[in-house]
Amino acid sequence: MSGVVVRSIERAIPEIVDGLGRCGVATVHEAQGRTGLMAPYMRPIFPGTRVAGSAVTISAPPGDNWMVHVAIEQLQAGDILVLAPTSPCTDGYFGDLLATSAAARGCRGLVIEAGVRDVSDLIQMGFPVWSRAIHAQGTVKATVGSVNIPIVCAGGLVHPGDVIVADDDGVCVVTRDRAEEVLESARRREAAEEQKRRRLAVGELGLDIYDMRSKLEAAGLRYV
Amino acid sequence: MSGVVVRSIERAIPEIVDGLGRCGVATVHEAQGRTGLMAPYMRPIFPGTRVAGSAVTISAPPGDNWMVHVAIEQLQAGDILVLAPTSPCTDGYFGDLLATSAAARGCRGLVIEAGVRDVSDLIQMGFPVWSRAIHAQGTVKATVGSVNIPIVCAGGLVHPGDVIVADDDGVCVVTRDRAEEVLESARRREAAEEQKRRRLAVGELGLDIYDMRSKLEAAGLRYV
Amino acid sequence: MSGVVVRSIERAIPEIVDGLGRCGVATVHEAQGRTGLMAPYMRPIFPGTRVAGSAVTISAPPGDNWMVHVAIEQLQAGDILVLAPTSPCTDGYFGDLLATSAAARGCRGLVIEAGVRDVSDLIQMGFPVWSRAIHAQGTVKATVGSVNIPIVCAGGLVHPGDVIVADDDGVCVVTRDRAEEVLESARRREAAEEQKRRRLAVGELGLDIYDMRSKLEAAGLRYV
Amino acid sequence: MSGVVVRSIERAIPEIVDGLGRCGVATVHEAQGRTGLMAPYMRPIFPGTRVAGSAVTISAPPGDNWMVHVAIEQLQAGDILVLAPTSPCTDGYFGDLLATSAAARGCRGLVIEAGVRDVSDLIQMGFPVWSRAIHAQGTVKATVGSVNIPIVCAGGLVHPGDVIVADDDGVCVVTRDRAEEVLESARRREAAEEQKRRRLAVGELGLDIYDMRSKLEAAGLRYV
Amino acid sequence: MSGVVVRSIERAIPEIVDGLGRCGVATVHEAQGRTGLMAPYMRPIFPGTRVAGSAVTISAPPGDNWMVHVAIEQLQAGDILVLAPTSPCTDGYFGDLLATSAAARGCRGLVIEAGVRDVSDLIQMGFPVWSRAIHAQGTVKATVGSVNIPIVCAGGLVHPGDVIVADDDGVCVVTRDRAEEVLESARRREAAEEQKRRRLAVGELGLDIYDMRSKLEAAGLRYV
Amino acid sequence: MSGVVVRSIERAIPEIVDGLGRCGVATVHEAQGRTGLMAPYMRPIFPGTRVAGSAVTISAPPGDNWMVHVAIEQLQAGDILVLAPTSPCTDGYFGDLLATSAAARGCRGLVIEAGVRDVSDLIQMGFPVWSRAIHAQGTVKATVGSVNIPIVCAGGLVHPGDVIVADDDGVCVVTRDRAEEVLESARRREAAEEQKRRRLAVGELGLDIYDMRSKLEAAGLRYV
Repeated sequence: MSGVVVRSIERAIPEIVDGLGRCGVATVHEAQGRTGLMAPYMRPIFPGTRVAGSAVTISAPPGDNWMVHVAIEQLQAGDILVLAPTSPCTDGYFGDLLATSAAARGCRGLVIEAGVRDVSDLIQMGFPVWSRAIHAQGTVKATVGSVNIPIVCAGGLVHPGDVIVADDDGVCVVTRDRAEEVLESARRREAAEEQKRRRLAVGELGLDIYDMRSKLEAAGLRYV
Repeated sequence: MSGVVVRSIERAIPEIVDGLGRCGVATVHEAQGRTGLMAPYMRPIFPGTRVAGSAVTISAPPGDNWMVHVAIEQLQAGDILVLAPTSPCTDGYFGDLLATSAAARGCRGLVIEAGVRDVSDLIQMGFPVWSRAIHAQGTVKATVGSVNIPIVCAGGLVHPGDVIVADDDGVCVVTRDRAEEVLESARRREAAEEQKRRRLAVGELGLDIYDMRSKLEAAGLRYV
Repeated sequence: MSGVVVRSIERAIPEIVDGLGRCGVATVHEAQGRTGLMAPYMRPIFPGTRVAGSAVTISAPPGDNWMVHVAIEQLQAGDILVLAPTSPCTDGYFGDLLATSAAARGCRGLVIEAGVRDVSDLIQMGFPVWSRAIHAQGTVKATVGSVNIPIVCAGGLVHPGDVIVADDDGVCVVTRDRAEEVLESARRREAAEEQKRRRLAVGELGLDIYDMRSKLEAAGLRYV
Repeated sequence: MSGVVVRSIERAIPEIVDGLGRCGVATVHEAQGRTGLMAPYMRPIFPGTRVAGSAVTISAPPGDNWMVHVAIEQLQAGDILVLAPTSPCTDGYFGDLLATSAAARGCRGLVIEAGVRDVSDLIQMGFPVWSRAIHAQGTVKATVGSVNIPIVCAGGLVHPGDVIVADDDGVCVVTRDRAEEVLESARRREAAEEQKRRRLAVGELGLDIYDMRSKLEAAGLRYV
Repeated sequence: MSGVVVRSIERAIPEIVDGLGRCGVATVHEAQGRTGLMAPYMRPIFPGTRVAGSAVTISAPPGDNWMVHVAIEQLQAGDILVLAPTSPCTDGYFGDLLATSAAARGCRGLVIEAGVRDVSDLIQMGFPVWSRAIHAQGTVKATVGSVNIPIVCAGGLVHPGDVIVADDDGVCVVTRDRAEEVLESARRREAAEEQKRRRLAVGELGLDIYDMRSKLEAAGLRYV
Repeated sequence: MSGVVVRSIERAIPEIVDGLGRCGVATVHEAQGRTGLMAPYMRPIFPGTRVAGSAVTISAPPGDNWMVHVAIEQLQAGDILVLAPTSPCTDGYFGDLLATSAAARGCRGLVIEAGVRDVSDLIQMGFPVWSRAIHAQGTVKATVGSVNIPIVCAGGLVHPGDVIVADDDGVCVVTRDRAEEVLESARRREAAEEQKRRRLAVGELGLDIYDMRSKLEAAGLRYV
């Protein structure tokens, strides 16, 4: 299954992708029935960014970033690179040169279950990255992997063209064919939360807003 | 021992709590005989904050944040929520809605040996959190835990009403009945340190200030 | 081998040290044949700093910072303290008083495979630290270690007088006698990268710049 | 996607399942193009066992083993239970009572990215388990999950009915529709290895058997 | 609070201690309301042992085993040593000489949130140890700690004289004053489990024995 | 520094190597002044073995075991292979075929800061391995590393020809030129320990044998 580049993938409609990006990871994850979230060790290299894009996936051997070059050719504006190594690795697969190249093609960021380097430069460029590690360790270009095949990245299953939403809370994968439905659900959720936020801000209790008191009593909670 | 909410707890005098907060974690920990420190994986979600408050404790099942709602009703101005799951968990128990509710009751922050989410919002609100993880993973409200019972959080024993001091160095628990004595000791320590800082700043050596040379020689240190 | 302080060590020429510092960790590591890099868990306590200096090494028992005082006397302007505990430890060996003392002697920073504390103060002082942990836990002064002997720190072998380069990408050790040669190689590398950066920025592909297409085909890559 | 039990799943032919079991994880993983392997933290609770079976999958909330009871009803002789929690958890979802129940239905073992308990009993019963942890921590039965949906377990994607092969080397998932082809490839590989083993055992070198010398020279290897 | 040896501690009645030992960790932990369990990284150095004893507690600095010698004098037949370092440490605090000494005083084992060494000898002696690590790293005898004060060991709060139960499932602490009540509850639990085991062994389902079907349906579980 | 095979290395005298092996890791580590110990995550794949041999070192890229084949040609009877990857990796570099080949050349074992596979076979062969992981994940043969250069393995500095001692307590490196002196010191240590063991076995206390009571009092220990 290795050594394959799928050139033609389907993507979600840009407006839907962007809408999911505005909702953010926590809301989208809830709206999708709490599925698709990557592991908590996936952290942004700088705080305060929220992006969404279509996944161009990379399966790469440990310590070998050859496939990143191959994947960059497959990028379209609005895409996000998603790389999973075939075994655990913290090497710096990606630095400022690759970021320059990816950005030139309209790439919105990188999600990588491995390491990145040149992070000062990446921060200055404002190129968003969620990674497992920051490590200057270089990689080789000796063994092929695959581009645009389904991968498991940080515990999340990613098909090429799925929508990736990432912010300070982590990274969430939205299945392409459910993207529209998830967006609608996310927006409903946001509206409902806004109401609750106002009530909580003036001191109302969740115990009352969500009508929990009788359920807690039934579950055996005792006040002493 | 589960399923209990203790409604009435004793707290330390506000002036003492605030005084401990000004001293900070490293000084308070020393002043208390190097006890009460939580594990180093407890990290602030944003840097530069130093707080102190009275502990309202939460013992919660993994992946279940029902008790947070219960605990918020028990909060008084100046309190800090301290949550330990009953088994290791990185789920996001707490986000911007709960922070809004807690802040409305005067809560000064959260210490949680698990995950939080909506961290961009929490940062914008300036709501201080020390956590083991940042994770968008949601929780359920299905099983009761307890509020205001003694808990072990990140290796530290916390009784309700104990003083929690937290800053960029981590989190320290000061036993309520020793709070005043610890504050006095911390202030003496600060004064003594200020003197040493001035001497060190002009190039005097700790070897001389602390009179270490003969002790080092006795311990077998050789210069070659 | 414990209990020794080597007073006289050789250092690299200041211009070479500073030149390596300007190149940064990722470039220097490549220029040195991808050797000398410390483990990715060595992280700066604040972002955006890049330093280089001559290593004054410390081998210290777990939870005992006596040797830091001893090492500070051996510092010259332009040095960097490098501490490895003799067994895994996250205690706060170093805080604002020691930083004040080290800075007074011209020390450029600390690399420590253990913990530091008073990090708010260290950040305000602008004293650079790369550490494995941040922990307020104090240490004792009871057992001697050694200063300026070869140590293994975070997987990197460090001889006293070696050049330490550290930035947001981590920490790299350059062997003193290879420092000049590594600097030249690093500069050549920087020049070559600048050219490539310009070509990539306008949309040329690494696949073409590095002439990878035929090699990928030979390695079995198939486009579908 | 939660709260679903798929009652009817397709399984591979028993002879193929058993054949894969005899080949073992390392061989099967190679024969499948190095895909399907779970993470190395999945370890057997006792050494020396090699099993294969058809996956009955469980997606369960952290600290909640209700779905294990549900899944057991879906078991057929020759099946293996595969459980992934919806967030990281080390609780003991499974002990000797559940093992008794599963064994009574012909279950060949359990693969669980969480904890198990009563391991002395499980060892005495000879019930094979590969888990992330051993922990006596109990679970609740409060929130539904799903049975026989696709899950990601320890980094491996598992569809219900896939073939699970597990031994001292870990756990590998073989896609059901490729099971026969993988078995054939595994057997060819075993035969080829047997030949090589004999030659290596009498002192022939891999360098010669695999004809590596010229390739190593071309890759730049120098003998000094 | 450091530097104290409490010579006189109360212990539970031997018959109760031994009874708890026969029940084992998982049962006792349940019987005590799922409290008192240590973290899952506490593992036995050899499998198949089940012990119970009265805790003689040790709080020791990292890398310093002086207090173990002090604690051994406080041992009575039937006791178990429980050591927590004051900060994370994996050093080998305990080896065959100390085991010989402890065994000579009737000590039943060691629970240590740090490392041990000479494990081949310990295994040959049959001296039970639950530890966080196995490491040959030696320790010093330079700084005092305390004996028989309350400690937090691997997340569990231990008072001197509490009953420690340990087996292949880990380590559980039973509060001394609840020991009798916990034992009774544990025995009831064992009896109830025996019944269920028989029913499950002949193929009855937990779904029916525990009457779960309607609850699952009410919770929204759907069979498809 | 990569791509080099040093063919001629010096080894310690066989009698000294074997003598060190009989002493074991804990004793040798002490005898060498507590230096040379590898990290505690280096564990044997089966218990009860104690070996010593001369190090043939391997520096290999992550996920690439080409150099193992190269190193095997350099083996002499009595050697031990020691492999450190150039960045963290858990792949299975070594299995039963390579073990067959190494054993045919008189190799006594493998120390690897990475993964091994075919462990059932290795156990049946009785081929000793100390590794960081067990993982069936295969490796490639695409990039050269080096053989018989100095490496840092699991925190220990290893020169080719150094003596490796390994048992259930871990792995220790003895510098070749100090091997004889360390052996003598180790034997003295063993004799001294034997005496102490006898005294401790009959109930004498370390407090008295080592004359600790006055030192403890001077250090501030109080009995209450």
